[in-house]
Amino acid sequence: MNIKRYMIKDTNETELKHLDPDEKGEFKSKEEANAKMEQLKERLIELQDILFAQKKHSLLVILQGMDSSGKDGTVKHIFSGINPQGFMVTSFKKPSLEEEAHEFLWRVHQKTPPKGYIAAFNRSHYEDVLVPRVHGGLKKDDMKRRFRYIRQFEEMMVEEGTTIIKLFLHISKEKQLKKIQERLEDPKKHWKFDASDLQEREYWDQYQEAYEDVFKETSFEKAPWYWIPANHQWYRNYLALAIVVKTLEGLDLSYPKLDTPTPDISELITPRH
Amino acid sequence: MNIKRYMIKDTNETELKHLDPDEKGEFKSKEEANAKMEQLKERLIELQDILFAQKKHSLLVILQGMDSSGKDGTVKHIFSGINPQGFMVTSFKKPSLEEEAHEFLWRVHQKTPPKGYIAAFNRSHYEDVLVPRVHGGLKKDDMKRRFRYIRQFEEMMVEEGTTIIKLFLHISKEKQLKKIQERLEDPKKHWKFDASDLQEREYWDQYQEAYEDVFKETSFEKAPWYWIPANHQWYRNYLALAIVVKTLEGLDLSYPKLDTPTPDISELITPRH
Repeated sequence: MNIKRYMIKDTNETELKHLDPDEKGEFKSKEEANAKMEQLKERLIELQDILFAQKKHSLLVILQGMDSSGKDGTVKHIFSGINPQGFMVTSFKKPSLEEEAHEFLWRVHQKTPPKGYIAAFNRSHYEDVLVPRVHGGLKKDDMKRRFRYIRQFEEMMVEEGTTIIKLFLHISKEKQLKKIQERLEDPKKHWKFDASDLQEREYWDQYQEAYEDVFKETSFEKAPWYWIPANHQWYRNYLALAIVVKTLEGLDLSYPKLDTPTPDISELITPRH
Repeated sequence: MNIKRYMIKDTNETELKHLDPDEKGEFKSKEEANAKMEQLKERLIELQDILFAQKKHSLLVILQGMDSSGKDGTVKHIFSGINPQGFMVTSFKKPSLEEEAHEFLWRVHQKTPPKGYIAAFNRSHYEDVLVPRVHGGLKKDDMKRRFRYIRQFEEMMVEEGTTIIKLFLHISKEKQLKKIQERLEDPKKHWKFDASDLQEREYWDQYQEAYEDVFKETSFEKAPWYWIPANHQWYRNYLALAIVVKTLEGLDLSYPKLDTPTPDISELITPRH
């Protein structure tokens, strides 16, 4: 599994129309992927335990994507099973009045992970460059400034010990429609339906361009963007999990040693007869 | 009153031994200053009212200085009387365990003022470059990085609408001793005495040098440092207040206009017979 293939770099293709949301990688079937997924999940649990014990690094996973691209589902599938004490997830919605009275990084900075923790952002500060790009409201200079703030902010986080992974869940316009239909037809999914998703769908092409801008401006080595083919949920989950695991394996994780000489506790132990 | 004289720029003197903590500016007596201070206080109250109504700008006043230099007293004297609803003050003490698990700007960013507000920091992120400079614990590269983070962070705040004033309360070593004595002798001031202040006093010269570094690295036009002669409390208070008022006067403050045509409410008014 070479995750580098999905990393977006300057030299790579960033035009989304050339990236196939239907891709399934090396797998022939969902079952094949699921078996590997189980192994990866066990590995994630091991790695998180060391991360939490060591309290040296932290991991921030940022999830972005069009409506219905599966951000909630991805969080659920890749992080269920890990120790919830070392994990935090924040969904960034429309800013509150209090949040709007501050610059856009104010609310985001508060939710960054302390050392030892994994944090997931379901949407993020990237909404604050995507939405104005599509719907207007910010001058070109203001947009450039926001991109600069984002780079400086993420660079600081990385230099201070937070590893950042940014995942773009890439679905096709047809797949989105199918998922909206499901939400309308399945009573268990009604709650997920939001009429404004249909409105935003009309701006599909503008959003795709806005994402391409985001990749150009903010995919740097220390905090790279990955594109995740997301038409097949099982491949989306598998790939996102693989990226998280590979990234954690790249850190110098190890259980901390006792920093005092091992005390002799033999006298405290009541011998069993 | 020309506050520029106290602004620390590249071209200015930054060696503290050449700046006189006993200075009293244009005044011959405390009474003369206090009369002017009353006028300034009234002006501050007017300006804060507009700032709060307009919700376009915010003001952050950062107070730094040696122990007993009068940070608490300055906050009390210059901001008492303003509308507390539009004012917030944060004292940054030794970081908690939770705060220590994040980079040093995490706790500071949370306390920045929303639009319309004045915030005062009693100590600040500058402790995170001063203390390691004096007591060790950070490599030279790490210090340089922290200065860069501070510049980038403050620049962002300023560009996004927060005016920043940084005040260094400059007292002499003799004055500090006198204030420590007062704290020991006056039962009403016992609570202010902290034995660790005496320990830190031994590092006086190192702290003075550390502050000189801070001025060199972080006094830029958008967020300048001012040095405040602070041996005379009344001049310290007067000058700090004058800088706050002058700075607010430099903003384009104005009450917002009604954004709807003035409604006719004459019918609602019961005529008085």
